[in-house]
Amino acid sequence: MSARAFAPAHISGFFLPRITGKHETSGSLGAGICLSEGITAEAEIADTPGISFNNKPFYCKPVEEALLSLTEKPLKITLTSTLPLGAGFGLSGACTLAALIAANQVLDRHLLLGEIAKLAHTSEVRNRTGLGDVAAQSTGGVVIRLRPGMPPATERIPAGTLPVSWAYFKGISTEDVLEDAALQRQIVKSGREALKNLLQKPTLENLMIQSKRFTEQAGLASSQVLDAIEAAEAKRIPAAQAMLGDTVFALGEKVFCEYRYSGTGLINHTGAILL
Amino acid sequence: MSARAFAPAHISGFFLPRITGKHETSGSLGAGICLSEGITAEAEIADTPGISFNNKPFYCKPVEEALLSLTEKPLKITLTSTLPLGAGFGLSGACTLAALIAANQVLDRHLLLGEIAKLAHTSEVRNRTGLGDVAAQSTGGVVIRLRPGMPPATERIPAGTLPVSWAYFKGISTEDVLEDAALQRQIVKSGREALKNLLQKPTLENLMIQSKRFTEQAGLASSQVLDAIEAAEAKRIPAAQAMLGDTVFALGEKVFCEYRYSGTGLINHTGAILL
Repeated sequence: MSARAFAPAHISGFFLPRITGKHETSGSLGAGICLSEGITAEAEIADTPGISFNNKPFYCKPVEEALLSLTEKPLKITLTSTLPLGAGFGLSGACTLAALIAANQVLDRHLLLGEIAKLAHTSEVRNRTGLGDVAAQSTGGVVIRLRPGMPPATERIPAGTLPVSWAYFKGISTEDVLEDAALQRQIVKSGREALKNLLQKPTLENLMIQSKRFTEQAGLASSQVLDAIEAAEAKRIPAAQAMLGDTVFALGEKVFCEYRYSGTGLINHTGAILL
Repeated sequence: MSARAFAPAHISGFFLPRITGKHETSGSLGAGICLSEGITAEAEIADTPGISFNNKPFYCKPVEEALLSLTEKPLKITLTSTLPLGAGFGLSGACTLAALIAANQVLDRHLLLGEIAKLAHTSEVRNRTGLGDVAAQSTGGVVIRLRPGMPPATERIPAGTLPVSWAYFKGISTEDVLEDAALQRQIVKSGREALKNLLQKPTLENLMIQSKRFTEQAGLASSQVLDAIEAAEAKRIPAAQAMLGDTVFALGEKVFCEYRYSGTGLINHTGAILL
């Protein structure tokens, strides 16, 4: 007995963290794009529990804790992805969502997708592995997060199944930087401004403009990301940093194919689903 | 200049109308399944306005009125579908949603998908052509409608991209029947019970069980639909009437292939999207 599920990757163009007293209502506002690539999870009831990612043992607290909130039975969770972890694709959220949907099915727990998303989100917030990815990944599409937490208060920008390119530079994680209070204030200010500007003209093009501006103002981008943004803009393609990763993204096909760790996906519209 | 959009068909298994003083908050509770087949709409700015369905002129008040709420410019709207109109597939809602998404794009109106869905829903309610289809069609999947109106208060049952079969008997529309007050009361009672039972065990299988029970209790099915349900159940496949159409549906492939107007689609998970 096994079950499989998929959750899309999610690239956040800009964000604005909001932490309340409760995990459910904490999260982030912002906007981003879900990708046709993401996480496939298979869940099986096993003698000994275990989580693997691309065939290697995988220690991932948000997945483990979320599964424990669902069951005490030992589960074998097999996660696969063509995208790199820790690169700003929201894969911890996608792993948690996909694992829970597959586990819910194999265990006959009969939770609704919204209930599963709530468990995944609170586990992400508790572990500070993500703040807004699950909200976007539960619907798919090009998602604006208007309020933090669950149930998600999101809106979607109409968009075709367009190509999205990325390149990843494998630099140091930018997450530690967020401990800095002055930087936090700058992010909140820039994120709020980007959200306001995007809502005035909610288009994909404006999402890229606001994301680029956020990249500049937040100052979290490595020199490699900044160079890649400049190279794309020389080709008249707006690009921005994927928050939070040492990763650049842009609309269009093969925008960053000169870089070693690069690829092109499509916008995903299904959100997280049972396979 | 033109733009294209898609909106899935929606088969309602059971429903419970709720009309308030406002169109936005009126609608129906219930549950149903979105299909990979539906409506494709193309919108072009034209010299003279016009709506066609499968290359024939098409008079469809909810589409016309919804477009007028968006623009006074003359638009040519070309709708196509492989499914029959007036057969319980929620195609008036799908036509309205798809036409609006395409029109929004070609007119550079920059409305969000939720705003478009609200316009489509209110136009459906005003014209009494549908009460809950747009709410389901805006997300896709297997949708439970917990409250009527917009923004949709819906939940989705986790489901794979499974096949759904249908057969249509081209009988008289059952919509007129709903003027009957005693019948209305029966529908509300049966719909409420079906919703309560489904929420206790929200699975696809239980959706079919509750839909079948609603078919029996509501008494809106033609003898052909009832015969087709019986024939499917003889093969151990639960089937029910598509509300409101002279149509039967069931999970599985080619369940009704002995009937002339029949087909099999897949569960759609994207909801209405720009193409």
